[in-house]
Amino acid sequence: MMKKNIKHLINLNKYSNEEILELVKLGEKIYNSPKDYSDICKGKIMATLFYEPSTRTKFSFESAMLRLGGNVLGFSDANTSSVKKGESVADTIRCISHYADIAVMRHPKEGTPKLASMYSEIPVINAGDGGHLHPTQTLTDLLTIHKYKGSLENHVIGLCGDLKNGRTVHSLIKTMARFNTKKFVLISPEELTLPESLKRYLKDSCDIEIEEVRYIEQVIDQLDILYMTRIQKERFFNEEDYLKLKNSYILNNEKIENGKDDMIIMHPLPRVNEISYEVDADKRAHYFDQAKMGVYVRMALITKLLEVE
Amino acid sequence: MMKKNIKHLINLNKYSNEEILELVKLGEKIYNSPKDYSDICKGKIMATLFYEPSTRTKFSFESAMLRLGGNVLGFSDANTSSVKKGESVADTIRCISHYADIAVMRHPKEGTPKLASMYSEIPVINAGDGGHLHPTQTLTDLLTIHKYKGSLENHVIGLCGDLKNGRTVHSLIKTMARFNTKKFVLISPEELTLPESLKRYLKDSCDIEIEEVRYIEQVIDQLDILYMTRIQKERFFNEEDYLKLKNSYILNNEKIENGKDDMIIMHPLPRVNEISYEVDADKRAHYFDQAKMGVYVRMALITKLLEVE
Amino acid sequence: MMKKNIKHLINLNKYSNEEILELVKLGEKIYNSPKDYSDICKGKIMATLFYEPSTRTKFSFESAMLRLGGNVLGFSDANTSSVKKGESVADTIRCISHYADIAVMRHPKEGTPKLASMYSEIPVINAGDGGHLHPTQTLTDLLTIHKYKGSLENHVIGLCGDLKNGRTVHSLIKTMARFNTKKFVLISPEELTLPESLKRYLKDSCDIEIEEVRYIEQVIDQLDILYMTRIQKERFFNEEDYLKLKNSYILNNEKIENGKDDMIIMHPLPRVNEISYEVDADKRAHYFDQAKMGVYVRMALITKLLEVE
Repeated sequence: MMKKNIKHLINLNKYSNEEILELVKLGEKIYNSPKDYSDICKGKIMATLFYEPSTRTKFSFESAMLRLGGNVLGFSDANTSSVKKGESVADTIRCISHYADIAVMRHPKEGTPKLASMYSEIPVINAGDGGHLHPTQTLTDLLTIHKYKGSLENHVIGLCGDLKNGRTVHSLIKTMARFNTKKFVLISPEELTLPESLKRYLKDSCDIEIEEVRYIEQVIDQLDILYMTRIQKERFFNEEDYLKLKNSYILNNEKIENGKDDMIIMHPLPRVNEISYEVDADKRAHYFDQAKMGVYVRMALITKLLEVE
Repeated sequence: MMKKNIKHLINLNKYSNEEILELVKLGEKIYNSPKDYSDICKGKIMATLFYEPSTRTKFSFESAMLRLGGNVLGFSDANTSSVKKGESVADTIRCISHYADIAVMRHPKEGTPKLASMYSEIPVINAGDGGHLHPTQTLTDLLTIHKYKGSLENHVIGLCGDLKNGRTVHSLIKTMARFNTKKFVLISPEELTLPESLKRYLKDSCDIEIEEVRYIEQVIDQLDILYMTRIQKERFFNEEDYLKLKNSYILNNEKIENGKDDMIIMHPLPRVNEISYEVDADKRAHYFDQAKMGVYVRMALITKLLEVE
Repeated sequence: MMKKNIKHLINLNKYSNEEILELVKLGEKIYNSPKDYSDICKGKIMATLFYEPSTRTKFSFESAMLRLGGNVLGFSDANTSSVKKGESVADTIRCISHYADIAVMRHPKEGTPKLASMYSEIPVINAGDGGHLHPTQTLTDLLTIHKYKGSLENHVIGLCGDLKNGRTVHSLIKTMARFNTKKFVLISPEELTLPESLKRYLKDSCDIEIEEVRYIEQVIDQLDILYMTRIQKERFFNEEDYLKLKNSYILNNEKIENGKDDMIIMHPLPRVNEISYEVDADKRAHYFDQAKMGVYVRMALITKLLEVE
């Protein structure tokens, strides 16, 4: 029953640099002339299959499809759907293939979107599978960098917070490493440093310089990009360590004072308290622009996968 | 981050009489020639953010947007959405601003839509915030009155049931008081009379006659409009009082026998048992027409806020 | 308040053979030239009122409406909607009549869609009411048979599994009996045979031959259609019986080896384990095509009820 010639997006590592760059550039092109794309998905239907809730991601995909002139059907929680009746994902996607032209799947279990794509007669997009992959978040980050820094290449990229856990940061690092990143600056408490294997990969396989520090202020002046992430209290071994450290990882105006004028500050959102509200007014803050770019890069992705360009 | 020049609807008291009348008249115009408006929101997206369920209100907004040629995305319950993850409403609306062109918010907490509007880059409509405000219900009532009575002015308006609690009735009274209401007739049990402050406001600030009675039959012959509301059992001090009184506040054919021929009977719906089913067949019953007018006045509101007219 | 001249679909037994055949043929016509129908519901709204979840059925209806150029609003679970507030179905549908142009209702309580249709000002489609009726599933089966067997008439139809319970099978039998079925072959364990009343009806009123057997292999060579259903463990008196029998009712390649070349295998889905995955690759397997045909026959039904053809 497996179909041929259908393109999916499950894992960015199956996309060539050219394909990734093409998506990023198409996203920027759509951003610059949205009217040219406002009807190209007329008559097409996207199914958003969210086996766990993720309002932001779901809205971003739906907005993208609607802005291309297409339509949307879906569910946002497997509990209010009958998909829990015991049907296999293989059977579900084969039915969905008849209801829709493209499917977006979020699933708590790693590998489920991959499995679905093997049985699907329509393109499947992985919108997050457990702690594993979330490729359209990475594409969002890439379009943001491309748009606000002019290129994906030759940046000094600071990553701050919990670098041990979190698919967002690992995926961003691995993907940016493919685009001649000048240097990664890793800013985290000792308990939450980037895994050794990933550091070794960057150094040995990619030959990219990395620098590890504990505090933002130590390196702020050299960064082109500062990517913030949330530190969850639960990640610490004890409350004392957490209380001692947390203020070091809350970004505020003081900490970015010595940053470059054209540095951009990013965050995958939602934030809780890791960036002070005062920073929002700084022209270098681009985390809400990321939400915007997320729509455009998804418009590009849908356009490519549906081959309607 | 606060944006300028974006018009919201949070509280009707920020709208001038002229603006309100303009909305009502536009609603009637759209009702009379819907085809002229069936495409004016093409390419626009409405986000319906319902942090508590309200199917009727949500459907009314969605129907309005779809009938204008626009599209809709949204959630109907914060529990099946990820908005409960601890993100602030300010951050949520700033992201939504990139996914949609207009936002409709229902929230259990008073003041939340107001707060959201302060950070939003798109128009925000308050679709009910706790027991506080529900301005589009009042606009719905106004369009119904305007359509079926020809004007908003010079009416004798009877309000029956629980006049103590209930934002719907208070908001209607305050708004109609701005349009030369001839007289308010307040029909309620002693326990559930209109708050003193509001009565004083009507008499002293607005110079409008008010009459308070216990039973519909006493005043039915003078009313141009009879606005029914539900009396909840829990509002009474004791069960005995409730049982004694409840039949007095259930509208039936007998009670409206002496009403004027062109009186209109209204109710915000849903009703439980406060209007007998037999009344539905009376040509003066207009509570289902209210549901219809609710769509048209919302179409007018969306049209105005999006400036697509 | 009851309206005249509005056509609903509550029970297929109110539709003439001609009307049913017209729907089936229109479904096939739309399948063959979908472009001709892709805009005929422009500006129309369907309300999907699912008082219990049924993702597959809901998606099928929504896909149908979207593929006709119409729009959709709805809820998928009465718990996340406010319809549980105690409003009668009569009042709900009278309001919905103002929000939408056609309503699809799924309800756990038998007879509720029928009741709604009596008060509705728009067409109501029964999308399943308890264990009672599910007429669009039967229409789906009919279109599948018509498309893949060329006609509804003169077939030897094998029905296998739980023939005692299950509205799907009973409804299919009763409807196919109206179209000159040559013979029904009933394949089930003794505990789950077709009800006597239905067997008598087929023999006495319809004069159709029926044959009852225990095992698929006994009759596979004479079947034009093999309709599989699920056997639920709970239906058996004891676990021992279940374990002894269940393998007899799991379809695999071996069991269909002697089946005709142009036999079609159907199943209403979802399946759990009653058809082995190996059968999926057999060209006679048409259960996923049923999902596809379900969309087209619903497109036909919507087209007819909205009179937009």
